[in-house]
Amino acid sequence: MNFRVDNLQYCNWSREIFQINHDAKLDALHATICYHEDFDELQVNIRQWNKFFEENSDLIFQGKNSSDIKKAREENKTAVFYGLQNCSPIEDNIEYVEILKNLGVLFMQLTYNNQSLLATGCYEKRDTGITRMGKEVIKEMNRVKMIIDMSHSAELSTLEAIEISDQPIVVSHANPLFWHEGLRNKSDIVLKELNNSGGMIGFSLYPHHLKGASNCTLRSFCEMIAETTKKISINQIGIGSDLCIRHPDSIVEWMRNGTWTKTKDFGEGSAGNAGFPPQPSWFEDARGFDNLDRGLREVGFSENETHDILGNNWYNFYQKFD
Amino acid sequence: MNFRVDNLQYCNWSREIFQINHDAKLDALHATICYHEDFDELQVNIRQWNKFFEENSDLIFQGKNSSDIKKAREENKTAVFYGLQNCSPIEDNIEYVEILKNLGVLFMQLTYNNQSLLATGCYEKRDTGITRMGKEVIKEMNRVKMIIDMSHSAELSTLEAIEISDQPIVVSHANPLFWHEGLRNKSDIVLKELNNSGGMIGFSLYPHHLKGASNCTLRSFCEMIAETTKKISINQIGIGSDLCIRHPDSIVEWMRNGTWTKTKDFGEGSAGNAGFPPQPSWFEDARGFDNLDRGLREVGFSENETHDILGNNWYNFYQKFD
Repeated sequence: MNFRVDNLQYCNWSREIFQINHDAKLDALHATICYHEDFDELQVNIRQWNKFFEENSDLIFQGKNSSDIKKAREENKTAVFYGLQNCSPIEDNIEYVEILKNLGVLFMQLTYNNQSLLATGCYEKRDTGITRMGKEVIKEMNRVKMIIDMSHSAELSTLEAIEISDQPIVVSHANPLFWHEGLRNKSDIVLKELNNSGGMIGFSLYPHHLKGASNCTLRSFCEMIAETTKKISINQIGIGSDLCIRHPDSIVEWMRNGTWTKTKDFGEGSAGNAGFPPQPSWFEDARGFDNLDRGLREVGFSENETHDILGNNWYNFYQKFD
Repeated sequence: MNFRVDNLQYCNWSREIFQINHDAKLDALHATICYHEDFDELQVNIRQWNKFFEENSDLIFQGKNSSDIKKAREENKTAVFYGLQNCSPIEDNIEYVEILKNLGVLFMQLTYNNQSLLATGCYEKRDTGITRMGKEVIKEMNRVKMIIDMSHSAELSTLEAIEISDQPIVVSHANPLFWHEGLRNKSDIVLKELNNSGGMIGFSLYPHHLKGASNCTLRSFCEMIAETTKKISINQIGIGSDLCIRHPDSIVEWMRNGTWTKTKDFGEGSAGNAGFPPQPSWFEDARGFDNLDRGLREVGFSENETHDILGNNWYNFYQKFD
C-alpha cells in the first residue's frame, strides 16, 4: 500500500480545502494548529477542528497514530494530524506536554523564528542552543512520543535537539541551503545529522524557500530532491508543502508579528513584498502532488522511490511514535 | 530628608512582616510579586496585595512614584512598590507591559535564572544577549517608564540591556563578583557599565550571595561596599536585601523549579543544602538596617554617605521614572 502525505499545511481551512486535499489523494496531513497561541487560545482552535471533523466527516477525521493513515486510505479520507509551529501552548509549564499529546498534538516546533523558552529561532542574532527548560521538555516529548520539529530553529539549536533527543526529530517543512539561501533552509551539517539520527526533512513549496521563488520550476525542485539524496537517505525525505492558501495577507502579518513586537516585522518578506507570495503554477495547492509524481520520475526516481518520497517515508516515520 | 529603602524583599507577607519593616523605619520597599506567574496568575497576587493594603493601612500603602516615598516618611508608613522577578506576566504579549505599569509594576526583570523570551538567565550555558522580542520590550518599558532589572540575568544580556535601554537600569539585588563568586553576583565590567549609564546596584543580604554565607560578618559586608565604590559611584549603590523570611522551604523549591522542569533543580543551593539558608545574625530581618548604618560608619562612610547608601540613592533613582 502506498500513501500520500503532506507533512505541513496551514491553509484557511474550509470544506473547499478538505475537498482539494481529497482530490489530491492525501491520506495524511500534518496541519498547523498554532503559531502564537497559548494553551487556552489553542483550545479555541481545537474546538474549531472538532467542528470541522464533525461537519466534514466524509472527507477528514483526526489522525492520532500511523494506523489512521491506513484507515484514511481504506475509507478514502484524509487523516489530519495536529502540529504546533511554536511551543507557546505549553507556556512555561512542562506538564502541558502530556496534556497536548493526549489532545492529539503529534508535532511541536521548539521555536518559531524567535527565541523561545526552549531554543533559538532562525531569525535571532545569536543561538543559545537548547535551554535548561528545553532539555527537560525534549525528555518529556520523548516520553510521551511527541515529535520534535525544528523547521524554524537556528542551527546550533537544531543540532543540539538532534543530539539530546532519544528519538529522531524532523524538519517538517524547509529546503536545503545548498539549493536556495532561504533564511529557514537547512545546512549540509543539519542534513547529515538528521541522516545519522534517523530524522526526516519535508521539502517545502513555500516560495520564500524556493530557488526562483514563485517562478521556481518543477524540474529545479525535483533536481534539488535528487541532489539532496546524496546528503540524506532517500528513506528520510518527504513533502511538507507549507501551503498557506486562501488566507488574506493579514494572516502572514500575524504569523510574523504575533504579539511580540510593536514594530512591524516582515520575516522572509520585505516592506515591498509583505504578503503571501503566489504559489508556483505547478503547485498551487495539494493537487500539485500529481506534478511532483511526474517531476520526480522525470529526474530519474523509480516508481517505488517516488512513492516513498510522496508519503511512504512519512508513514514509516509516524510508526515510530505509535 | 533622608530615606530608608529596601529595594528587594520577597517575604511571606503578613502583618508581622509589615510591622518589622515599619520598626526598621523603611520608607520604601520594592516587593517581588512574581517569580513564575503568568498575567492571570499575577492578578491573584495583586488582589492579595490590595487586601494587605486595606487591612494594614496604618503600616503600608501601594507606592506608585517617588513622591510616595516622601509621603510614607510623612505618614510614618512604608510605601510598597511592585516588582516582577520574571517577565512571565507579559507572556508573549508586549501590550501587557503598559497594562502592568498601570497596575503599579515599577520593576521587571527580563529573566529569572533561565532563558526567557527577552534575554538569558544567569544559569544557562550560553547567553544570546537581548532577543528580538527583548529589544522591543526594552523600548516599550522605556516608553511607559518601567525599570529594567537584570539581577538574575547572564552577563552579555545585562550589558546589552544597559546598551539598548534609553534609561538607566538596575541590578536590584546582587553583590560584586570580586567579593564572592556567587553565580548571580556581578562582574567588574557590569559595575563599570552600570556606573557609566547611571544605573544602580542594590547589595544583597541573601546568604548565597555573601562571602562566608550565613557566617558573613557585618564588617566584611561593609568593607565590600567601600571597595565597590571604587568601581561604581557612591550615588549609584543601595540595598536590595533579598529577604525571604518566614517562608517554608517548599517556597524556595518553587522559586527554583516553577513548572519548567520535572527534574529537581537546586539553584544556588544543593541537594544537601536545599532550603532557605539562615540569615546572618546582624541581618535577620530589615531591622538589620540599624546594623548596616553602624557598620558603614565603622568602615569610614560619613553620615551623609550612609544615608545615601541606605535609601537616598534609591529615592533619587525612582524620581527618574515619575
